[in-house]
Amino acid sequence: MPDTTTPDSASLSPTLALACELMRRPSVTPDDAGCQDVIAMRLERLGFHLERLPFGDVENLWAVRGHHGPVLAFAGHTDVVPSGPEVRWQHPPFSPHIDAEGMLWGRGAADMKGSLAAMVTAVERFVATHPEHPGKIAFLITSDEEGPAIDGTRAVVEHLREQHDRLDYCIVGEPSSTTRIGDTIKNGRRGSLGGVLHVKGTQGHVAYPHMARNPIHEAMPALDALVSECWDSGNDHFPATSFQISNIRAGGGATNVIPGELDIIFNFRYSTEVTHEQLQERTEAILTSYGLDYRLEWTLNGEPFLTDHGELIDATIACTEDVVGRRPQLSTAGGTSDGRFIASLGSQVVELGPLNATIHQVDERVRADDLERLSDIYEAILSRLLV
Amino acid sequence: MPDTTTPDSASLSPTLALACELMRRPSVTPDDAGCQDVIAMRLERLGFHLERLPFGDVENLWAVRGHHGPVLAFAGHTDVVPSGPEVRWQHPPFSPHIDAEGMLWGRGAADMKGSLAAMVTAVERFVATHPEHPGKIAFLITSDEEGPAIDGTRAVVEHLREQHDRLDYCIVGEPSSTTRIGDTIKNGRRGSLGGVLHVKGTQGHVAYPHMARNPIHEAMPALDALVSECWDSGNDHFPATSFQISNIRAGGGATNVIPGELDIIFNFRYSTEVTHEQLQERTEAILTSYGLDYRLEWTLNGEPFLTDHGELIDATIACTEDVVGRRPQLSTAGGTSDGRFIASLGSQVVELGPLNATIHQVDERVRADDLERLSDIYEAILSRLLV
Ligand SMILES: [Zn+2]
Ligand SMILES: [Zn+2]
Repeated sequence: MPDTTTPDSASLSPTLALACELMRRPSVTPDDAGCQDVIAMRLERLGFHLERLPFGDVENLWAVRGHHGPVLAFAGHTDVVPSGPEVRWQHPPFSPHIDAEGMLWGRGAADMKGSLAAMVTAVERFVATHPEHPGKIAFLITSDEEGPAIDGTRAVVEHLREQHDRLDYCIVGEPSSTTRIGDTIKNGRRGSLGGVLHVKGTQGHVAYPHMARNPIHEAMPALDALVSECWDSGNDHFPATSFQISNIRAGGGATNVIPGELDIIFNFRYSTEVTHEQLQERTEAILTSYGLDYRLEWTLNGEPFLTDHGELIDATIACTEDVVGRRPQLSTAGGTSDGRFIASLGSQVVELGPLNATIHQVDERVRADDLERLSDIYEAILSRLLV
Repeated sequence: MPDTTTPDSASLSPTLALACELMRRPSVTPDDAGCQDVIAMRLERLGFHLERLPFGDVENLWAVRGHHGPVLAFAGHTDVVPSGPEVRWQHPPFSPHIDAEGMLWGRGAADMKGSLAAMVTAVERFVATHPEHPGKIAFLITSDEEGPAIDGTRAVVEHLREQHDRLDYCIVGEPSSTTRIGDTIKNGRRGSLGGVLHVKGTQGHVAYPHMARNPIHEAMPALDALVSECWDSGNDHFPATSFQISNIRAGGGATNVIPGELDIIFNFRYSTEVTHEQLQERTEAILTSYGLDYRLEWTLNGEPFLTDHGELIDATIACTEDVVGRRPQLSTAGGTSDGRFIASLGSQVVELGPLNATIHQVDERVRADDLERLSDIYEAILSRLLV
């Protein structure tokens, strides 16, 4: 029988106790399940000015401490992805458990209630020693990062833009580390551009192909050209832009019918070497050059962003190296994150959090000690930028 | 209001009266709805020896008249395709109606109760004038030509093969004419070979394409090669072999997932210049040359058959020209037919029937007079081959 006892918070460090308190709340997107109340209470006690910014069914919290100077914001989300069948977990997903090896198990341990706890305790320690710090400390917390991400960080950022609120530095707590805590800092993300392509043909019977136009056959060379195209070669910060077809569909199952339409869904992950307008133009030029009769709908999921230098990068690298004893590497790999919305305010943005090995999986877990180290790094960055 | 009166059989020719009697029976595949009883009674009166050969839920009738010499068989089916919504028909599909322009309306008018009636009355007139004809006249009637076609003609042919029954000439009543009665005789059909192809890749996230193998991307050049391949150039009797992809499917709808498998259904319609074994080998060689990880299941729907010369072709062309005043053309176009099973007995096989313009559609109809001409042609062929 696995030991499923919830740790006794009295015996835990402040960071682990807070992480467990958040993890006990089953805040599956967009349900915040009271997590932001817990964080808000802690921040209020530190003298933060709180603003609750609910949009639709999404809870958001914007909290600021201080009155003048540069703003250093911590950003994160209280929502988690669904646990899937609980029986597949070694420990119940919403009953946090620390095992004998010092691993903290449960949904959100890595993505990203552990980071939120580390941020709050880092600020608590910093404020205790620097009650009159210059600049401002802010928190931007949402309950919809894992979902549509429309009424979450994006909406809060629009609100800040309307208020002409400044946001100089932002640390996002996404799990950026790969094999050891602090080994990787994300300083940007690729853009994501989606396309839905409908190729029109003329339905017919396979016995009379000359009376039909098979859209699968007509599209094949054009799709092969899109797959083979070199969109760019990337740059120092980004790998080459990548094109992937995720869905293709034609035919209703009948084996003797030439289908009348072909539907394709594809996605670009793109670097800062191209714009989404250029990708759209080049895609359409290829499709047109093959004479296809097509309809194409585009969705811009996120433009690429990059913080390639500046005080925040310098501070994050130096403080991480100080705490963990190794110099972290910079990376822009992976999916989109809420950093893309924050970067649109002109902020320097980095992402630094625990190991991402188990996120979105059963048995999500993180080394408990890593959360202490993460909190130390966050505190060191505060000391470096706001003292 | 359309006039939906069923014609009074007393005022009709024997061929039209019998056609209407069969069309009133809603014999949707595999239901014979008593049609074979009607035909059997007429043939028994002429001295045919009857054999009922039910297989599964399919009714089959094999009937022979005569004792020695070459066998001329008439082949056909009593089953019809469903009518679809009756309200879409100008006249109820199972209430045959002859309009003022002399068109016979109803399901089965063209495919192929009209032909069956023309065959029976042709034989009735022939036997009346040639009661002691040399050779044998046979009927091979099934109620499953429009369905799976497994327990129908195919099973009867296997039965005949086991009995070592001879079948020299066979006239199939499928609607072969295109714009005028007797303008086209089918003297063969292309083969049909189906394939179901599964291409294996490795599922992944579109943001990490290097950790996945996109089966759509991997298959694209191979599929393009299959589509572009020249399988043969056809011959005097057959158009070039044609390859068509009827279905393609990958991805479960998620726009950020690289699918793990691609499913494709394709079909060859092939000439007598290639064998199905050659097509299979060449397809697999192309797939393998592109390094695909695939699984492929083949279904041979029908081998091609051809009656390129002989007494039956000569008689059918001459008699058709005699009756309609125009020389018919030979054709092997279109889908498969039960002729493929009969040809496997070594028979000469032709298909001759009414216009196919409205078959399998609402408002199926045929010129009533065309059925009389058809019966005249069938009778002339009997006189030519069995006198
Ligand atoms: Zn996250
Ligand atoms: Zn038919």
